[in-house]
Amino acid sequence: MATLADIKKDFAQWYQDVIYHAQLADHSPVRGSFIIRPYGCALWEQIQRRLDQRIKETGHQNALFPLFIPESFIKKEAQHVEGFAPELAIVTHAGGKELEEPLVVRPTSETIIHYMFAKWIHSWRDLPLKINQWANVVRWEMRPRAFLRTTEFFWQEGHTAHATLQEASDEVQMMLAEYVDLAHNWLAIPVITGLKSETEKFPGAVQTYTFETLMQDGKALQMGTSHLLSQSFAHAFDMKFQDQQGTMAYPYLTSWGTTTRLVGALVMVHGDQKGLILPPKIAPIQVVIIPIFTKQTNADELLQAANAIYVQLQNIGIRSYIDSDTHQTPGAKFYNWELKGVPVRIEIGMRDLQAQVCIIADRLGNPKQTIPLNQIVTVIPSHLMHIQTMMFQRAQERLHAMWYKAQKLAEFGPLLDTQPGLYQTGWCQDIACEEQLKVYKASTRCLVQEKTQSHCFYCEKPSKQDVLIARSY
Amino acid sequence: MATLADIKKDFAQWYQDVIYHAQLADHSPVRGSFIIRPYGCALWEQIQRRLDQRIKETGHQNALFPLFIPESFIKKEAQHVEGFAPELAIVTHAGGKELEEPLVVRPTSETIIHYMFAKWIHSWRDLPLKINQWANVVRWEMRPRAFLRTTEFFWQEGHTAHATLQEASDEVQMMLAEYVDLAHNWLAIPVITGLKSETEKFPGAVQTYTFETLMQDGKALQMGTSHLLSQSFAHAFDMKFQDQQGTMAYPYLTSWGTTTRLVGALVMVHGDQKGLILPPKIAPIQVVIIPIFTKQTNADELLQAANAIYVQLQNIGIRSYIDSDTHQTPGAKFYNWELKGVPVRIEIGMRDLQAQVCIIADRLGNPKQTIPLNQIVTVIPSHLMHIQTMMFQRAQERLHAMWYKAQKLAEFGPLLDTQPGLYQTGWCQDIACEEQLKVYKASTRCLVQEKTQSHCFYCEKPSKQDVLIARSY
Repeated sequence: MATLADIKKDFAQWYQDVIYHAQLADHSPVRGSFIIRPYGCALWEQIQRRLDQRIKETGHQNALFPLFIPESFIKKEAQHVEGFAPELAIVTHAGGKELEEPLVVRPTSETIIHYMFAKWIHSWRDLPLKINQWANVVRWEMRPRAFLRTTEFFWQEGHTAHATLQEASDEVQMMLAEYVDLAHNWLAIPVITGLKSETEKFPGAVQTYTFETLMQDGKALQMGTSHLLSQSFAHAFDMKFQDQQGTMAYPYLTSWGTTTRLVGALVMVHGDQKGLILPPKIAPIQVVIIPIFTKQTNADELLQAANAIYVQLQNIGIRSYIDSDTHQTPGAKFYNWELKGVPVRIEIGMRDLQAQVCIIADRLGNPKQTIPLNQIVTVIPSHLMHIQTMMFQRAQERLHAMWYKAQKLAEFGPLLDTQPGLYQTGWCQDIACEEQLKVYKASTRCLVQEKTQSHCFYCEKPSKQDVLIARSY
Repeated sequence: MATLADIKKDFAQWYQDVIYHAQLADHSPVRGSFIIRPYGCALWEQIQRRLDQRIKETGHQNALFPLFIPESFIKKEAQHVEGFAPELAIVTHAGGKELEEPLVVRPTSETIIHYMFAKWIHSWRDLPLKINQWANVVRWEMRPRAFLRTTEFFWQEGHTAHATLQEASDEVQMMLAEYVDLAHNWLAIPVITGLKSETEKFPGAVQTYTFETLMQDGKALQMGTSHLLSQSFAHAFDMKFQDQQGTMAYPYLTSWGTTTRLVGALVMVHGDQKGLILPPKIAPIQVVIIPIFTKQTNADELLQAANAIYVQLQNIGIRSYIDSDTHQTPGAKFYNWELKGVPVRIEIGMRDLQAQVCIIADRLGNPKQTIPLNQIVTVIPSHLMHIQTMMFQRAQERLHAMWYKAQKLAEFGPLLDTQPGLYQTGWCQDIACEEQLKVYKASTRCLVQEKTQSHCFYCEKPSKQDVLIARSY
């Protein structure tokens, strides 16, 4: 059996071990790119399914835009090219020839989508235009880490155009709220949200809202963003519409996205020394059924009983799996499914079957229960809900326990080594003060509405509002 | 309103017009790449959903492999590189530097997937390994045409490894049968299937089975393929396993795929002068509900009635849409939804509402029916089924009408201009004879089990079995 590094002593290695042994991902021969293996892919598909449903229910439509973007497009928005240039992968040859204009493998699709928006938008009747794309994007990565930082990653990117600034702002907030809902109610991950600082915002945006959280090692992970884009993109692509008064105007744009990073977040927020722990609502396998074979066992009879349980659960929409392998011991199977984070395990042996009961164990270590077989369809769903709730609460307690109020960088900066976490403090919003965080390898994560501190963490001038500071992935 | 080119006189232009005006796709600024617009994307998602379900039900798991493949990988299988080299797009620079080894943007993923299979497969217990990937691939295209020939396209590629040749052959046949089921029962497209000739098979395969059909202009379209790969890929990537006797052996490999071409096939097989006609089972909108507003109309009341119909249909799983626009005339709406190929239209005006009826029209031009509102949930599903069946029958009749038995190329070759279609003839299976088809811009589509002709179409030596010949997209 695989051994995982100590989660307390070497969190980074533990993470890699879990990713590898739970078969979420594997290294590829292409530097910075990973293989997302079937179990990791199934998890991503669960997340996708939920998010795609909400994206459609909130009035967006999926479309597919090209992987390649002419290099000149990226250069049209000045901040945008500055932000992305160092990370680009560039196709210079194709079809056996050198290309006249190199093509960039998309790092994000604002430029090409805005080019098309300019073709499609003519009148206020064409607005709002609300598009989403599920896609792979490429940003050259120097320090790759599975799911968290990879050269190629998978995401959805929403792109919308609106007649008024108010509508665009509402869109930015609505999609941020959708992300929070996904994190809280499906991934069981409590998040902080707020505006990014000028330094940290998306290249070309007026405002970037982030949703992020702390991993168990006290480092923050940005899980996704929702941007109010400047009209500079509309200007750059000459995107204009005739408004209701007959005047030509530039639309207001937004974009928002979240990625396969969410899989990494699930591992780092919920996992323990035994491996993954997956929230029931998005676990690819919610219940694993293990027939306990012994030498005296009638294997067929047990498998039939397991199958009856499987069918009952399937009928009420619960995703389960029967581990009918006859080579592994029950202990080895328990170990494996715990590693893979399956929330509930049902064990059934010959004696249980004769008594018409089964045993329920869960991944959070709650005491095992013996329940009558005819109560499965009532007990399992409520137990899964209970686990979902417990996981969110546990994660929330951890987040709060690592969330500190602080006054001066000179005091909390050194603490980031021994007491990593989220430091809420005052800030004058001067970039020079933010720069000082680099000394401690920290950064501002987002601004918060609260004002608990009166002075800036560095220059001690009056604070405009609180800011959250942490080290991050 | 948009006008479509005459489907009889200029089929190619008609196709482009339908694609553009029905908003399935649009040109992009990147040569050979197209934008798949929301309506086209929704159609592809319907096809994907069905196929993905069957891929999983037949024991495959989805995974995600890198977009980039080291150039040296492509070169490992000799026939493979020869087949794909002219179509490759190559990344030479990334992260601000020239790469030591150029990266190929995947034209297909055999090489990188087999490299990983070699890492994952050790024993007969690791077999069969059955993986599928939904992905974008790039093959540089000189004569692009939306959905049919595009530089970037979307597909699924299945890749499996088996302990025995028999198992691998069974897999190839099973997935071919799945494709036929998809075409016949969902896309309402009758297909021909059979082995590709040595010239036409996949670079690196021992056998390639194809499923294809005739478009209304008599040209064939290959819609997908299922390959039995040679063990040469296993040798190239040193993929070995210990069999049950303890001997090291090379596994037998398959791959199979189908693409966004299916969307093009739907257009070309079913469409008419008015535009698209979509088979109900995969139409993104199966029923469009049009309230007939007039000056005397109580719009609210009509919308309420339309909404009641919508909810009833939704409850029985029918995808419908209410066209509540108040600017367009009913006639303009009829035109638009016919262009978009929606199978059934429900019209409801004030007088209908007072009589508690509505009017049902369909895209095949069957006589309009007036039905009581309380019969909608029984009438609509059976009417949709009826349309599905009619569409398949109609397409099958067209295919048979363009399927000719022929003896000599000198006779049927010239006919390809005036009487395009599928010519079934005898063939000695000599490549030299196949070469002669180029004179008439035709090719072998597949071998068929029948033997209706005794002699080869060109050299007149004995025929081994019949072959189907056509011009193709």
